[in-house]
Amino acid sequence: MKTKDRIIEASIELFNSQGERNVTTNHIASHLNISPGNLYYHFRNKEEIIRHIFTKYADHMQVSFEPVKPSQDAIKILTNYLDAVFSALYHFNFLYDNLPVIMARDPELRVQYLQIHDKMMEKIHHLIVSLQVAGVINMDNSDIDDLANIIKQQVTFWISYSKTSSEDSEITEQLLYKGLMKVLLLFKPYVTAEYKDAVAEISEKYRARADGLVPATEDEE
Amino acid sequence: MKTKDRIIEASIELFNSQGERNVTTNHIASHLNISPGNLYYHFRNKEEIIRHIFTKYADHMQVSFEPVKPSQDAIKILTNYLDAVFSALYHFNFLYDNLPVIMARDPELRVQYLQIHDKMMEKIHHLIVSLQVAGVINMDNSDIDDLANIIKQQVTFWISYSKTSSEDSEITEQLLYKGLMKVLLLFKPYVTAEYKDAVAEISEKYRARADGLVPATEDEE
Repeated sequence: MKTKDRIIEASIELFNSQGERNVTTNHIASHLNISPGNLYYHFRNKEEIIRHIFTKYADHMQVSFEPVKPSQDAIKILTNYLDAVFSALYHFNFLYDNLPVIMARDPELRVQYLQIHDKMMEKIHHLIVSLQVAGVINMDNSDIDDLANIIKQQVTFWISYSKTSSEDSEITEQLLYKGLMKVLLLFKPYVTAEYKDAVAEISEKYRARADGLVPATEDEE
Repeated sequence: MKTKDRIIEASIELFNSQGERNVTTNHIASHLNISPGNLYYHFRNKEEIIRHIFTKYADHMQVSFEPVKPSQDAIKILTNYLDAVFSALYHFNFLYDNLPVIMARDPELRVQYLQIHDKMMEKIHHLIVSLQVAGVINMDNSDIDDLANIIKQQVTFWISYSKTSSEDSEITEQLLYKGLMKVLLLFKPYVTAEYKDAVAEISEKYRARADGLVPATEDEE
């Protein structure tokens, strides 16, 4: 692997495990057993590393929240969405953990993030409409935009919420699945009688992972 | 007003309007036309000012989310809660805007915040149970804890979400009321036929404020 790629990989790993704000370029160089000068040859500063990671994040979102085929089953669209959310939170948890700060200090990233945000809102909107059209849920059309925003906020700030609301702030796979359970609960009251069992079955699957009863597997990679 | 109190008042005002991370003790002193030395006589550093504000925040939460009388109407408990949420977000928006960072850098504040969090969770839990017992909503008892967490997250990170998801990041009264509308939507699918009109009436009241159709008034102070 090229040094540049190794730096990016190590940075993601250290940011995720120790928090972006606690990791300096010197930590990253030391972790890789390279000199700070060697690191600076590839990236002028931490901000440039984060921009590079952000491009990877944008690609990841593009691929994992792939466009849905028109014929696709609505329940499958829902589980694909949840799995893609898990994957994003799992691989880039430091971004979610410190999003407002990272956005505030780099206007360029902010613009890129807003584009990703808008695309994600489209996906969530599409997910809700697909569930509605397929008869899985039944809700007022006028509430769809607000529900989409609630879901987006729930996903984006789940890590920040978890870290600020409990003593134990470690980001584990189980914790991320607990976040997915909350997203499922947002849909639950709208689920029609016909689809109650199908959605309950999905809930059970994610609950088992949230409870650590089955090893959480990363299917997306 | 004593200099100490003027410093606290000016700090809250500047933190709220310019973001806590953009305001230094020098800004605060200059805003008050006092010397940095005079400010340092009262507070050793910004962290000490924030701790002092945090005590005011804790008092504010204690008073505005007051204990409910047993005889109180469930709908009234709901509007009291929403108004208290508005008041907290309005007066201390900088805390919500930068909560994870403030918690991360001051373990003492973190402990205090966790206590406030737990109390707020009790209030939300009590609100949901009151609505359930009064027949305003009908939901599975096993979902109450999760719904309480969703509401808490929605309130606590509404400002961060708004600031990271749109170009225009100004915190206005209308924006805060838009956040309250989201909380109401979280209850809406559980509302019983009997109380549908009563809850719709509340929604209209807050929607009018969110849309800026009536001047938002701060009743709590």
